[in-house]
Amino acid sequence: MNRDSWNRIRKCFKTLLDDDTFIGKAFDIFIQVLIFLSMVSFSIETLPHLPGWANTALHYFEWFVVTVFTIEYMMRIAVGGLSYIFSWWGMIDLLAILPTLIGAEVDLRSVRILRVLRFIRALKLTRYIKAMHRLNVAFGLIRDELVMYLLITILVLYLSSVGIYYFEHDAQPQHFASVLHAFWWSVVTLTTVGYGDVYPVTPGGKFFTFIVLMLGLGIISVPTGLITSALQEAKKLIEQEQESQQEK
Amino acid sequence: MNRDSWNRIRKCFKTLLDDDTFIGKAFDIFIQVLIFLSMVSFSIETLPHLPGWANTALHYFEWFVVTVFTIEYMMRIAVGGLSYIFSWWGMIDLLAILPTLIGAEVDLRSVRILRVLRFIRALKLTRYIKAMHRLNVAFGLIRDELVMYLLITILVLYLSSVGIYYFEHDAQPQHFASVLHAFWWSVVTLTTVGYGDVYPVTPGGKFFTFIVLMLGLGIISVPTGLITSALQEAKKLIEQEQESQQEK
Amino acid sequence: MNRDSWNRIRKCFKTLLDDDTFIGKAFDIFIQVLIFLSMVSFSIETLPHLPGWANTALHYFEWFVVTVFTIEYMMRIAVGGLSYIFSWWGMIDLLAILPTLIGAEVDLRSVRILRVLRFIRALKLTRYIKAMHRLNVAFGLIRDELVMYLLITILVLYLSSVGIYYFEHDAQPQHFASVLHAFWWSVVTLTTVGYGDVYPVTPGGKFFTFIVLMLGLGIISVPTGLITSALQEAKKLIEQEQESQQEK
Amino acid sequence: MNRDSWNRIRKCFKTLLDDDTFIGKAFDIFIQVLIFLSMVSFSIETLPHLPGWANTALHYFEWFVVTVFTIEYMMRIAVGGLSYIFSWWGMIDLLAILPTLIGAEVDLRSVRILRVLRFIRALKLTRYIKAMHRLNVAFGLIRDELVMYLLITILVLYLSSVGIYYFEHDAQPQHFASVLHAFWWSVVTLTTVGYGDVYPVTPGGKFFTFIVLMLGLGIISVPTGLITSALQEAKKLIEQEQESQQEK
Repeated sequence: MNRDSWNRIRKCFKTLLDDDTFIGKAFDIFIQVLIFLSMVSFSIETLPHLPGWANTALHYFEWFVVTVFTIEYMMRIAVGGLSYIFSWWGMIDLLAILPTLIGAEVDLRSVRILRVLRFIRALKLTRYIKAMHRLNVAFGLIRDELVMYLLITILVLYLSSVGIYYFEHDAQPQHFASVLHAFWWSVVTLTTVGYGDVYPVTPGGKFFTFIVLMLGLGIISVPTGLITSALQEAKKLIEQEQESQQEK
Repeated sequence: MNRDSWNRIRKCFKTLLDDDTFIGKAFDIFIQVLIFLSMVSFSIETLPHLPGWANTALHYFEWFVVTVFTIEYMMRIAVGGLSYIFSWWGMIDLLAILPTLIGAEVDLRSVRILRVLRFIRALKLTRYIKAMHRLNVAFGLIRDELVMYLLITILVLYLSSVGIYYFEHDAQPQHFASVLHAFWWSVVTLTTVGYGDVYPVTPGGKFFTFIVLMLGLGIISVPTGLITSALQEAKKLIEQEQESQQEK
Repeated sequence: MNRDSWNRIRKCFKTLLDDDTFIGKAFDIFIQVLIFLSMVSFSIETLPHLPGWANTALHYFEWFVVTVFTIEYMMRIAVGGLSYIFSWWGMIDLLAILPTLIGAEVDLRSVRILRVLRFIRALKLTRYIKAMHRLNVAFGLIRDELVMYLLITILVLYLSSVGIYYFEHDAQPQHFASVLHAFWWSVVTLTTVGYGDVYPVTPGGKFFTFIVLMLGLGIISVPTGLITSALQEAKKLIEQEQESQQEK
Repeated sequence: MNRDSWNRIRKCFKTLLDDDTFIGKAFDIFIQVLIFLSMVSFSIETLPHLPGWANTALHYFEWFVVTVFTIEYMMRIAVGGLSYIFSWWGMIDLLAILPTLIGAEVDLRSVRILRVLRFIRALKLTRYIKAMHRLNVAFGLIRDELVMYLLITILVLYLSSVGIYYFEHDAQPQHFASVLHAFWWSVVTLTTVGYGDVYPVTPGGKFFTFIVLMLGLGIISVPTGLITSALQEAKKLIEQEQESQQEK
């Protein structure tokens, strides 16, 4: 293969991977559908009592998907050069095919963990998520505040755990065995999930829960407020940016 | 019937269906009450162990409603012409009477599905929902972002499912039988519904739930923020529109 | 009693009921504490297995409260004239004392409903809730939208009920016996309360719940957005009002 | 020790406690990690069936932590003078070491409550929570409204309790034994936690819950709106402040 035909092939790959051309868009949608079907197929594979023919079909489909993804990966390296291998998307692309490729060689025992790792494939989808510019700008504006807020949330969860442990440990030693067990209750309660596997039964514990929840509503409100405020600001920033670009 | 009397009848229908006149408004309210009563009557009909006289009464009421709706449908065709049949509201109006009309002719077995389809009648109500201009403008502003956000949510739900499946499958093979079963857990948990039919029991699964929920609160906050921001923008756009109309 | 001394008494009452003077403020706090204690006392009264002395104490306290409230009511009539009786606050004041006054005369059977009606007393507290000007302005701005939104919510709840009834009726005839029973499930699920008394068990029902909840999160977001937007607007309106008053 | 060497030591302490220098920042992180590890260690300590060596290790670690905190406390007094003892942070610092110090002297029975009090140590972390300026400004703007809103919430919870008590007391006397028991239901329901330990079973009670929840969604929305609105205003105020400082 001489350099000239190689260049022609690279150009052909570029057209396929470029999402501005018609054929590029079609290829994008093909890959997206494949990722989605692969996610569904992986979910079905875990179903118990699958008939033999279904397992065979899923097996063949898996290899079809991995073959396509491997070809796509190689095409992207051909276009982007070796530096693509060490880029973010290069890593994701590699990790999307590796579990199945390795799984074919190794013994059956460690296959399950490799199977689970195939979920990484779903992250390939994020490449196609657009319209997120505003979300990124917004999160950039409040990153520090959100991290700080996460710390406050964990602090509140910890203090709630200690409190409920104190109130409920004697009444329900199996559910509130330790502060760590009580932490699970705090998470489930303050996020208002409330499975019902653990809940206070003593009057003191119930009153404490009431107090914690009155604060909890406030806690849940703050990140919502931060994000809403940041999204509006991001909107303004993006509009100013666009205006200044148009003026040029 | 000559053309003149036909025109007079059409004019009469127009007055009845026009919601600006007094008689038109009264007719609107009559239809709305009928839709509402029909929804209630359909709900009551499904109650088990209904006495015979109640069934008879509901049956007669159903036919009364369908008769009125059929007359309304024909009046609207008379006013709007044949093109009304293929319009959005024409379809809804037809589907609102069809299940009962067909149900009278066919055998009993397939009647149940037809009965359920009568719920379409409730959509007739949306014709009367006004003051939604702002909501429509707001949703129009963020349609792309909401769709993209729905995809992100489904991605998060999928990754949560794979994670919890990995942690809980061995401990609770009946509840976390597959990734699809685990997806149900993800939906119930990340929306903070938390029925309590499935929940993690292993320390690893509980810690994973904690991580997932910390992100989940953030996820729930973003669409709220988008909608709030869009509602304020929609307000401004509508006010600007009204001002520019007044200036003319 | 001549007119002069009557006027002096009225003036004295006015001072007591006026919340700008020191003695008026003290009287306000006294009434507020009494309302709160009366709420607590009513709650305690419903506790089963109360010892005799506690019942006696609560009985005497109840009559003390009613006596004070009756005197307050008469003072307010003396100051505000007969028109006070037919005002909003006059009604509340009367209803706060009536159940106990009537309960003393009638036989024991109907006493329970009268006892429950004593909760109306809690509404007396709303007289003292200030700083609500902004909330009132905000709700005034979006009253129509909120009402319209309530209708949409009920429509969504109804359609969810019909859907889940269709999917789950055969599998769980005891929980989803009718559309009315299914409506309870819709309410508990779409508000994300999720008691866990009813939940779907069929794959179809679970998938339907997933769809309903994706929309449900959006539904919960809209009134939050409307209220946030209205509160900011109310803030602006109030500031403009204050500025225009200062300019005068 | 003469005054000169004392001053040199104080200066050295100042450098260590100052969070602008490199060594001060390192010391800060060291203390933060210690607080975090101490919180984890306290949680582990409450686990049942801990092996003997783990208890011994935790015991030694506890004394290491308390020693470091005591030295830090004394350094802060040396730098800040005796007035530090009566400052907010001085109190927290003292309460963080006191339980363990006293626990070493007293008999075993009262040790448990002292152990629980060690959670106060977590509050030492709040010293390091920065980026909260905006949150503080925002909460300062709506403090009155939030307090008033808390009162409204409690009023709504009380009225819900009385209502559900009336509807459910006869059907479930064990769960809705009194208005106080019903209050627990109100808290769990209106915060949308919904453990599932108590829920209405009568048609009347379920309908009442529906009404209460329709209002409940509104109630949950208002503080979110207040906080969002306040956060945006706080942003503006802080920016104005910074601009006026730059102009000087």
